[in-house]
Order: sequence, then structure tokens, then C-alpha cells
Amino acid sequence: MTENRTRLLPGERIDDLERDGLVLIQNASFFRYGVDAVLLSWFAKAADGERVLDLCTGSGVVPILMTAKTGAKNFAALEIQPEVADMARRSVALNGLEDRIRVVQGDVKEASALFGGSSFDVVTVNPPYLTAGGGLHSPDLTKAVSRHELLCTLEDVLREGAKVLRPGGRFYMVHRPYRLTEILAGMDRSRISPRRLVMVYPRLSAEAVLVLVEGIRGGRTELRAEPPVILQEEDGSETLQIRQIHGRA
Amino acid sequence: MTENRTRLLPGERIDDLERDGLVLIQNASFFRYGVDAVLLSWFAKAADGERVLDLCTGSGVVPILMTAKTGAKNFAALEIQPEVADMARRSVALNGLEDRIRVVQGDVKEASALFGGSSFDVVTVNPPYLTAGGGLHSPDLTKAVSRHELLCTLEDVLREGAKVLRPGGRFYMVHRPYRLTEILAGMDRSRISPRRLVMVYPRLSAEAVLVLVEGIRGGRTELRAEPPVILQEEDGSETLQIRQIHGRA
Repeated sequence: MTENRTRLLPGERIDDLERDGLVLIQNASFFRYGVDAVLLSWFAKAADGERVLDLCTGSGVVPILMTAKTGAKNFAALEIQPEVADMARRSVALNGLEDRIRVVQGDVKEASALFGGSSFDVVTVNPPYLTAGGGLHSPDLTKAVSRHELLCTLEDVLREGAKVLRPGGRFYMVHRPYRLTEILAGMDRSRISPRRLVMVYPRLSAEAVLVLVEGIRGGRTELRAEPPVILQEEDGSETLQIRQIHGRA
Repeated sequence: MTENRTRLLPGERIDDLERDGLVLIQNASFFRYGVDAVLLSWFAKAADGERVLDLCTGSGVVPILMTAKTGAKNFAALEIQPEVADMARRSVALNGLEDRIRVVQGDVKEASALFGGSSFDVVTVNPPYLTAGGGLHSPDLTKAVSRHELLCTLEDVLREGAKVLRPGGRFYMVHRPYRLTEILAGMDRSRISPRRLVMVYPRLSAEAVLVLVEGIRGGRTELRAEPPVILQEEDGSETLQIRQIHGRA
């Protein structure tokens, strides 16, 4: 590990990803990864030889975790914000994954122009959840771009995701259930056929907070609503399931 | 209870609905009600003074249960098959509910012509789940019509449901999760905005088998994915939740 690789900027720290010794540089004033990224990297499947593109990659946490959780070795990660892309690139280097993950600074709205059509087997994305008008914008623009659809919308993600996927390729997204109608209808319009769906509930007695969806590019498949993920027991302790997903049990 | 009211035809029997002494005439060779109807009558809300229409009513089980579970007193129930509508009408009479539930024999595709537009506050429906081409057709045509979209499609149900509902009226449906994309996109197209969704899992570790959806006619609302329904514990016993829904706990 060279001096250059561990160079940290003001506000940055190195977090342990609790998975095969992987680490992640995060900035206290940027958007920080949560259980959504961990769940997406568990839900997504990718085999050795498959080309994977992570859209809206942020800190790069999804492809970094997927190098440990899947057999895939060939990841591209697209991030629009230069300072965030730079941080992701340094995290990749810090983990010695430069030969597996290529961080590209660019706009998701131009992903198919950047990478070419039908150029990936798998697309993953943990997009901004909130519409541009919805909720309070963070006063910090970098964080607001990660949370709100200021620079890209769900429609952009689906359209470009469909274009960069080869026919039969797989699209994996984590999002909020309150946008499920848009998600499923939008996937259908973009010719990404929804195939798997997992609802994520904080507790068995609580409303779902996240939904994981897999779709197939160009196919016509039946949707299966797989067993739910429950984050906590009613007493607030982690469920065995979530400890297994984190790799702690 | 008069002799006439309990007249049973060959193949018919009287089943206890395990709710306020309510009973239901069922025919062994017709489609018989299951947990879906019980869940729909639990999920749907209707207040005193509201007009409720149950589409594809079959044996009439949904409005019969809703007379006990909701405050509503004014139900219409539409069934296309004359022999099934007749059986439902006799069940209504057997329960002494003739002043609350009116069974109408007719085609859901003509519901808005039969009842008039904006004529209901609430619509409930447990439609045929399977597409006309999907699965094996029952050799018995009466049962096949209840299971397959032979005489009405999801699109028919949504279009007519939207027409008979007043603006702001509520639409409640139970269906199979594998058709969730069509359901949510179709509701959206019919201007029934999906507002509540409940996934129903046989066990916590199993794929969902049913989904309950509520939509608002003409509104723009955010979808909430409410806590899931789990039918059985891993050991096969009924969950406390399902016993409560059945009114047994």
C-alpha cells in the first residue's frame, strides 16, 4: 500500500466494509453508504467473465463489495461528480482492485454513448431515491445530488441501463417502495422485464423501506416476489438473515 | 330460516365462514373460496353509508364477510355465471342479508353500463388470476371461468372498476404477485393510483403467493408497502397474525 493510495482529503476517513478485509473511503459531508448498498451487492448475481456496470456508483461501494460476493472480475463504475469519482478511484486502489474496477467520471444520461450499446451483461444501480421536488434538499450539493434526482431521473437510469445491456442481460436496482409503480411500469417500457423482487422491511410489523428488483433486458418473464428481508427483530436486534447477508453469521 | 332459503342443489354444501355465524353455499364442482377472499375482506375498508361493488363475486364470499368486518351496509355483487350468481343469491338469503347485498348477474365488461359511472365509493375484486393461455384449464368450464381470464381480463376489471368509482373512491384487489407489473401499470393507466400494497407469503422463507393492492380513483398518492402477511410459521402452524385476520385470536 503506497503513500499515494492512502492519501485522504479533509473530511475523509477509511471505513471497514466487514467483508474480506475490504475498505472504503468515505467523506462525512458526502452521501454515505447504507444497508441498501449491502443488500444490492447481495441481491445482484454476476459470474466470472461477465461485464458489470454500476451506475450512480458514488463511493464505489457496490462494485467493491461485489468483487468479494460474486465471481465477476470486470467492473465499470460510473459517477458524475468528479470529487466523488476521485474518492471512489482511491478506494479501488486502496483495495488493490485497479485491475477489476474501472471508475469512470461521467453522466448516466450518456452511459450508452460512453460505453456503447449492448456492452454489459449486468447493470447495478442504487440511484437517487427522491424526486427533484420531493423532500428537503440537503444544503450540501454533493449530498443532494446523491439523494435527489437532480442530475438523473429513474427514467434516465432505466433507459440507459437498457441500452448498455446486451439482450438477456440483467438489471439490478435498489429503490424505495413508494416508487414501485414507476419502477415496474418504467422497466416494462424500457424493455427490462421485471423478474425478481424482494421487499425489505425494518421489522416484520413495519412498512417496507426498500425494494430490490431484477429485470431481464428484452425478455418476457414472470415476476417472482422472493422471500422478504427483515432487518431487525421486534426487539431491535439484527435478524439472523441480515447478519448472514452482511457475512457476520 | 325458510325451507326455500336452505334449498341446496346437487354438489352444494353449506360452509361455516367462522365469522359472526355467517355461512356460505359452495359447490364442490365450482371454484371455492380460499384465504385470498378472507384477506381481501380484511384488507378492504368500507364505512357506513358507502356503496360497495364486488366484481367477479363468485359465491359472494367477499361482500358476505365484509358485512361483518366493515361498517358498510350497501353492497352490490356482480357475477357473470347465472348458476353461480343464483348460488350467491341463496347464500345472501341464508344469512338474512337480502337488504344489504344485491347480487346482480351480469358481465364485468359492462359494469359501468349496468350500474352507471361514479356510482360506488368502493370496489372490491378477487378476479381470475391466470391469463386465458396460462396454466391448465379446468375441464369444468364454471371453474375455469373463475380461475382464467376467459370472460374478463385484468384490463377489463381495472377499466370498469375505474368507471364505476366516484373520484376519490377506493379500489381493492387481491391477485398473484407474478402479475404485479401489469397490475400497477394498469392501475396507473386506468387512473387508479396505487396507495397500499401488502405482500402475502406462505412462510417467511417462501416466495409471495398473493398481493393485496388498494388504489384511489383519480388521485395522485404515494404507494406504501405495508407490513407483510405471513400465513404459516416455519413449522406449518398458523401465525398469530393469520389467526387474528380470520378472527380466531
